[in-house]
Amino acid sequence: MSATRTDATTALVREAAAAGAGRLILDPEVLASYRHDQAAPGLLAAGTPAAVARPTTTAEVQAAVRAAARAGVPIVPRGAGSGLSGGANAIDGCLVISLERMSKILDLDPAALTATVQPGVINLALRKAAAAEELQYAPDPASYEFSTIGGNVATNAGGLCCVKYGVTRDALLGLEAVRADGEVLRVGRATRKGVVGYDLTSLLCGSEGTLAIVTEATVRLLPMPPAAHTLAASFPRLDAAGEAINAITRRHRPSMLELMDRTTIGAVETLQPMELDLDAEAMLFARSDAGRFEGAEEIAAMAKLCEQAGADVVLITDEEAEGQLLIAARRLALPALERRGATLLDDVAVPLTAVPALLRGIERIAERAGVLIGTFGHAGDGNMHPTIVYDQTDADAVARARTAFDAILALALELGGTVTGEHGVGLLKRDAAARELAGSLDLQRAIKTVFDPAGLLNPDKAPWATS
Amino acid sequence: MSATRTDATTALVREAAAAGAGRLILDPEVLASYRHDQAAPGLLAAGTPAAVARPTTTAEVQAAVRAAARAGVPIVPRGAGSGLSGGANAIDGCLVISLERMSKILDLDPAALTATVQPGVINLALRKAAAAEELQYAPDPASYEFSTIGGNVATNAGGLCCVKYGVTRDALLGLEAVRADGEVLRVGRATRKGVVGYDLTSLLCGSEGTLAIVTEATVRLLPMPPAAHTLAASFPRLDAAGEAINAITRRHRPSMLELMDRTTIGAVETLQPMELDLDAEAMLFARSDAGRFEGAEEIAAMAKLCEQAGADVVLITDEEAEGQLLIAARRLALPALERRGATLLDDVAVPLTAVPALLRGIERIAERAGVLIGTFGHAGDGNMHPTIVYDQTDADAVARARTAFDAILALALELGGTVTGEHGVGLLKRDAAARELAGSLDLQRAIKTVFDPAGLLNPDKAPWATS
Repeated sequence: MSATRTDATTALVREAAAAGAGRLILDPEVLASYRHDQAAPGLLAAGTPAAVARPTTTAEVQAAVRAAARAGVPIVPRGAGSGLSGGANAIDGCLVISLERMSKILDLDPAALTATVQPGVINLALRKAAAAEELQYAPDPASYEFSTIGGNVATNAGGLCCVKYGVTRDALLGLEAVRADGEVLRVGRATRKGVVGYDLTSLLCGSEGTLAIVTEATVRLLPMPPAAHTLAASFPRLDAAGEAINAITRRHRPSMLELMDRTTIGAVETLQPMELDLDAEAMLFARSDAGRFEGAEEIAAMAKLCEQAGADVVLITDEEAEGQLLIAARRLALPALERRGATLLDDVAVPLTAVPALLRGIERIAERAGVLIGTFGHAGDGNMHPTIVYDQTDADAVARARTAFDAILALALELGGTVTGEHGVGLLKRDAAARELAGSLDLQRAIKTVFDPAGLLNPDKAPWATS
Repeated sequence: MSATRTDATTALVREAAAAGAGRLILDPEVLASYRHDQAAPGLLAAGTPAAVARPTTTAEVQAAVRAAARAGVPIVPRGAGSGLSGGANAIDGCLVISLERMSKILDLDPAALTATVQPGVINLALRKAAAAEELQYAPDPASYEFSTIGGNVATNAGGLCCVKYGVTRDALLGLEAVRADGEVLRVGRATRKGVVGYDLTSLLCGSEGTLAIVTEATVRLLPMPPAAHTLAASFPRLDAAGEAINAITRRHRPSMLELMDRTTIGAVETLQPMELDLDAEAMLFARSDAGRFEGAEEIAAMAKLCEQAGADVVLITDEEAEGQLLIAARRLALPALERRGATLLDDVAVPLTAVPALLRGIERIAERAGVLIGTFGHAGDGNMHPTIVYDQTDADAVARARTAFDAILALALELGGTVTGEHGVGLLKRDAAARELAGSLDLQRAIKTVFDPAGLLNPDKAPWATS
């Protein structure tokens, strides 16, 4: 290994030893496993890191950052590597700082309704620890079984419960982070309210590792909501589903409101036959956790709104086990589409009223580009995941997939939406994000410079992070 | 007037005319009414503005900002002037830009669940417009009948419903603002979710007019919750009330959970006799809007928790009119204390578990400083308003009030809290805020410089805004 080591790597290793960062991983096979996250395999640049640091304490993160800064080596921070936009993809010769071993729940105070965790804590582990106290940590990205709180903070992760309980930023009270110069930064607070100073906690949340490296997060917990009531509805026409979404969201606060289009319904039924209506243009899935009585009433009212909008099949249940069966189809959406080929998973959000127009537009894009697109997602937030299925061994198919992908982003912007609702910009959406942010790109860049004047923290991962 | 006009004022008027900012108000009597907000009258610096601009459009705000920038005159933006920290206090020779005439609700879309308003819209006006569509604009500062959305955004205003529905920042989706150079900035989005770029919307919210002047805000609306059920409870001991707060918040999500201490109870009973228990050390007021059945259950459960914690009187009602009577005492808290003398209204927040320690500490501070302090506030958020009552004609009493005020801020920090939960820093808490922000003051200042390199926007209003 040392024979092929570059000068920069040698300097990095020397500086790490001097700074007390511990041994860096240099084994090429291990390094290879830190090259990329879960985004669009093969489509995004993924360099080979010079080394990987796996600190267990904030002091070790500081030492690793200082070593990289002294060696002039860029840093790519990384959680579980479950990101979907290439935000954790390595750069040739970089230092990957993996926070996976900082996985302690430092404090969980059921009376204060707060938890303080290291960044490598798996979302599910925090969820379970809270549940043991009959409390809920609300943000539930689809990756909750393996993604980390640090990664959730870096991307401001969403999930299914956002429609009622908000995204990661809404649950975040304070952060400890290591700055580009190795100093420790504390922002936010342990209280539920506070207005001192500019909101640096919200600024770091969603910054995709470009401003500082989160080493500790304090989050708010909520009392565990009552058991949920569940609904699944099948719509012959997409517009009818759109009407139902609007009718539901303007009168009710579902704890989940999800949609699946015809292509996705077909893929799910192929993967696991469950008598879904293959002629339906859309299915909706809703839950209410408003309680034993109000939840039953709310689900019944939402069912009625679905019928009034034109649903031809509406199933409801008050039983959790039956409820899980009803929403099983939605949970299979992505795995079912992935069986059909390589997938390019998109993540756009539009105003609630534009969901039907978005879905119609995606159908036209699929037709024009000659690709298969299955769309599912968080209808109650207007946040959809059009998933382009393509043959990655066919260069023409890959090109058509990318064309469709770009057309979907353009459509979302046309409809007054955003190019990413919850996955982040990373490498995947740099150009589209630059268009969306045209009016504030200079401020975005200037803020990056304030935090990271040398541009060492996850450089080139977002349009505002480049100089 | 023109005879006493300074060169800077003359330059400002000339530039305003050139920039198309319209006529500036120069009448000394009118200028005097724009000198300060509602904070601690007489205790804070309040200069006399050179002029006041009252724009009706974003273009006029741009012109006014450009005129001030060219004349080198500082700008103090202002909403209703109902702030409680001196954030809108004028500086000698400044240009006050009052947004009061920009009071149009530009859009209210019940299907998209969003409203876009000019900054001068009164909170209550937006609330009423939403209610006409059976929707709720949640943030409800005590000043909601006269404070503006622009002011609410500038201070990230809280209120009574925050405990369940969050603060102004939680309701904010996007902003239009005029930058220090007169350019228009658009941040955020019209969608309910979005993760493109650093969160400049949250950064501007709570920035107290030091980064840009908000000219338009897009906020999210919620379905109107069901009618609330109400509880009032009287506790012989403060610690018992603290126990009840913790027991309630860890199991329930009240839509209001307020506290009043013995001094405040006495002041209210004096103002308006309503048979309050003058021996009680604390009263709690709670509401549940969980619905007809669940709301009744939740109020009954909270009543039981109050009794278990040691309440000796607990009243509950399912009727709105009766509920308003039960919480009338809480609404009279500040007016009742104001009858006793001049008031210095504080606004600290501590972790939920520290509320009893905060209240005990405040009692000790009152005793030591020889002042009367009545404390009430948002117990469910740990956000309290200790209100120091003093004789403003007695220099010694004023000095003792200030001593007590500073001691309360120090106590809040000791208890892991913050020096302002919802009112803002302004002029009132610059020193304390600097202590609280010691770890990030350089970043706060650098961000100020990014947005306002010449330091013209509400200068000296916060420790991070000074150079």
